[in-house]
Amino acid sequence: MKFTEMLEARWNAADTLLCVGLDPNPARFPKALASKPDAIYEFCRGIVDATADLVCAFKPQIAYFASCGAEKELEAVIGYIHEYYPAVPVILDAKRGDIGSTAEHYAREAFERYRADCVTLSPFMGFDTIKPYLAYEDKGAFILCRTSNKGGDDIQMLTVEGERIYERIARLAATEWNTSGELGLVVGATYPDELANVRRIAPELPLLVPGIGAQGGDVDACVKAGVTASKGGMVINSGRAIIYASAEDDWKDAARAAAVATRDAINAARR
Amino acid sequence: MKFTEMLEARWNAADTLLCVGLDPNPARFPKALASKPDAIYEFCRGIVDATADLVCAFKPQIAYFASCGAEKELEAVIGYIHEYYPAVPVILDAKRGDIGSTAEHYAREAFERYRADCVTLSPFMGFDTIKPYLAYEDKGAFILCRTSNKGGDDIQMLTVEGERIYERIARLAATEWNTSGELGLVVGATYPDELANVRRIAPELPLLVPGIGAQGGDVDACVKAGVTASKGGMVINSGRAIIYASAEDDWKDAARAAAVATRDAINAARR
Repeated sequence: MKFTEMLEARWNAADTLLCVGLDPNPARFPKALASKPDAIYEFCRGIVDATADLVCAFKPQIAYFASCGAEKELEAVIGYIHEYYPAVPVILDAKRGDIGSTAEHYAREAFERYRADCVTLSPFMGFDTIKPYLAYEDKGAFILCRTSNKGGDDIQMLTVEGERIYERIARLAATEWNTSGELGLVVGATYPDELANVRRIAPELPLLVPGIGAQGGDVDACVKAGVTASKGGMVINSGRAIIYASAEDDWKDAARAAAVATRDAINAARR
Repeated sequence: MKFTEMLEARWNAADTLLCVGLDPNPARFPKALASKPDAIYEFCRGIVDATADLVCAFKPQIAYFASCGAEKELEAVIGYIHEYYPAVPVILDAKRGDIGSTAEHYAREAFERYRADCVTLSPFMGFDTIKPYLAYEDKGAFILCRTSNKGGDDIQMLTVEGERIYERIARLAATEWNTSGELGLVVGATYPDELANVRRIAPELPLLVPGIGAQGGDVDACVKAGVTASKGGMVINSGRAIIYASAEDDWKDAARAAAVATRDAINAARR
């Protein structure tokens, strides 16, 4: 099944736009896990089990696994999601961007080795660096457009021929770059005005929206700015605010409670 | 020792601006290695031994290791270079770019796990995504500026307030972003005019120049455009044209011969 179809089916079946970001940082793990040798896997599995029915996607951030040499654990976590929650797509947050021959290897990493359904990519090196991922025709790719961090202004907000760089990227992704029909855009929740602009330029594209929760984005404003005409079209990520809701023995329940609250706040805003 | 000092020392001591790119693709390995279980490590070690005295740096491209789950081999290759050729810096080509909290994990991956001396980074998300790498004060970072691929035009050649995006990045890297003194820029050999522009804007910064060899960049034009006033300042990468010079039993000799020829062509052009 194509990534966009999987996402659409999940939005409808589970009535949720929430995505839980899997950013496993052992320094913040519950005390009960601290001494376990497979703490990263056990932590991610615990979060997945506690929240899977509440999410439209999971988004593991590869840097958190790579910094501590936990590639096998990342493979295992994604394998676990596919096995037990096959309707929930996995977005590998990797923000890759490199020349075509290298991009082929990164695409193989994301889609064959890790079996992700979708990957995040940087557009800085242009369309020929995006194309190798589109050769996997069922797989999705979210392209960085307007990121949630302050430094996002440095390049993305520059104006060229009357449009901002992020607007140009949105336009290209919605038109000539979207040869597979599987592209989406990353737009931070911290900038609702730009989110509304992107939605105007790309009325149908799925938007991956990080920045609520720990990064401070306002749920109501971002949902109203980013939903499609049919009140969907968004994958709203919350990572740390959910997965580290508690470091005590109640960590799974606390993560679930935070995920319920976030899903409900999103649903209230889009109705 | 700081990365830039290490590089400067190596340019002088070994009289070379050549960097050999380690892009291990098992499909192109010499037949003699094909059946070995540790083929990736053996291949890279063979290339390193055959070319170390000819280079100012080695540049492993992480995607080639990641696509086949060869993280341990990458650690071992870099460890081998540090042990046997400690004067030769290692540039991890990773082109990372992500928000600060994630960048800290990527920096840990590059500098602590892999023990690279330098990393390549994307500027698309702005300075706050570069900063966490600069906290490692001896480590270097080459920032993408004008890349060697055709799609590099899509964003990098756009004009903002009278300057191209790549020119703006060069200006920022040469001034306010260079808080550690350890920044450099990636500028493709395929665009000598832009290389000359970057050198004008950033007269002192080290330039990592991919795109000669397999990508077709002209050595003479690129060296003349990119050298500093003291005829150095460049790390000119050749990967595939050197490491896959032969797939027969003479693969190490062939790689060495290709590296000698490239080093000599570079040196002829800069004198």
